[in-house]
Amino acid sequence: MVVKVYGPAYASPKRVITCFIEKEIEYEVVDVNVFKEENTTPQFLQLQPFGVLPVIQDGDYTLYESRAITRYYAEKYKSQGTELLGRTMEERGLVEQWLEVEAHNFQPPLYDLVIHVLFDGKRGVTPDQKRIKEDEEKLARVLDVYDQRLSTSKYLAGDSFSLADLSHLPFGHYLVTSLGKEYMIRDRKHVNRWWDDISNRPSWKKVIQLHPPVV
Amino acid sequence: MVVKVYGPAYASPKRVITCFIEKEIEYEVVDVNVFKEENTTPQFLQLQPFGVLPVIQDGDYTLYESRAITRYYAEKYKSQGTELLGRTMEERGLVEQWLEVEAHNFQPPLYDLVIHVLFDGKRGVTPDQKRIKEDEEKLARVLDVYDQRLSTSKYLAGDSFSLADLSHLPFGHYLVTSLGKEYMIRDRKHVNRWWDDISNRPSWKKVIQLHPPVV
Repeated sequence: MVVKVYGPAYASPKRVITCFIEKEIEYEVVDVNVFKEENTTPQFLQLQPFGVLPVIQDGDYTLYESRAITRYYAEKYKSQGTELLGRTMEERGLVEQWLEVEAHNFQPPLYDLVIHVLFDGKRGVTPDQKRIKEDEEKLARVLDVYDQRLSTSKYLAGDSFSLADLSHLPFGHYLVTSLGKEYMIRDRKHVNRWWDDISNRPSWKKVIQLHPPVV
Repeated sequence: MVVKVYGPAYASPKRVITCFIEKEIEYEVVDVNVFKEENTTPQFLQLQPFGVLPVIQDGDYTLYESRAITRYYAEKYKSQGTELLGRTMEERGLVEQWLEVEAHNFQPPLYDLVIHVLFDGKRGVTPDQKRIKEDEEKLARVLDVYDQRLSTSKYLAGDSFSLADLSHLPFGHYLVTSLGKEYMIRDRKHVNRWWDDISNRPSWKKVIQLHPPVV
């Protein structure tokens, strides 16, 4: 059964696709154009009632929320492809911890930057400079904690690449490309080493090549 | 080994404690007073570098982020107390999905209300009425989706109570008590039935009795 992934052009669905490539899971994509509000049609809301991406269909099983989808497949195909959930129960706990940090500390200011700089720009709206500055300051404080953590640990949850690292790729990519804020990574020695490592994985390079970001 | 839980008076640590009671795990609490900024002391930041609650210590294992902690213990003590992760892999996927919905859709507007109505009130700051109205509108749209879901499913992830339901208790409690917005639950037939069910669990009643909310 080939899994359908909705919305490959956007960032959160790329978490799912990167996971699928790491786990050697076959998938096909269904394009959804957010700028044409295709994510709020009655048909789409049947699949994902909050109107957000991604959502997957695997036979008659439908699942949404990118981090939930990646956890489900990383567990279901535990012995296939890259192990993404840690090698012990304690490592898995740390994978969960850093997945939550990504969701609650790293992503919010960066998502806000993507919406207010890139998406508003594409819509012709002038970005709010005060808000951009505040977002960058918040993100800088978060990355300082990451730099500390990565000074004593190769990856966020331990010695091996996991879902916690993977989950940073789609929004981190905006930071080093279209947002023009690569210095936020490069100025931090350990974050820089970690970012080079995870963003050079063949899975992520393939995702960017197959499904170029929309902004 | 008795697990130490930091900050029992606040909402997110109550997720962890409710989980511990459901899983019959012994714990002890360490008070942290956020109003006295005890969450930003150098000692606290050693445990939780972002300065947020909760954090747990279990021997020499330290873990933070409430939803990560509850996943770790629900898995570690899988065969003890209430099963909180679903009975099949597909149910677990749905537990993960609704845990993410709680974190990204339910909690943000409600957290904002708690901060801007209750915490600002306690600090003597006048709440921003426009912001409160927007938060309530956002939360109402989320609860409409819940009402739809709960019209066909006893609990969020299926037929049995899970971490996904449990995770709503601490902030949902503010809605029906100190925020004075109980009507948001009561006006929705299926959400109302679900809330009565989950908030009457002995675990939650014990949490509220042992660790009364600070506001």
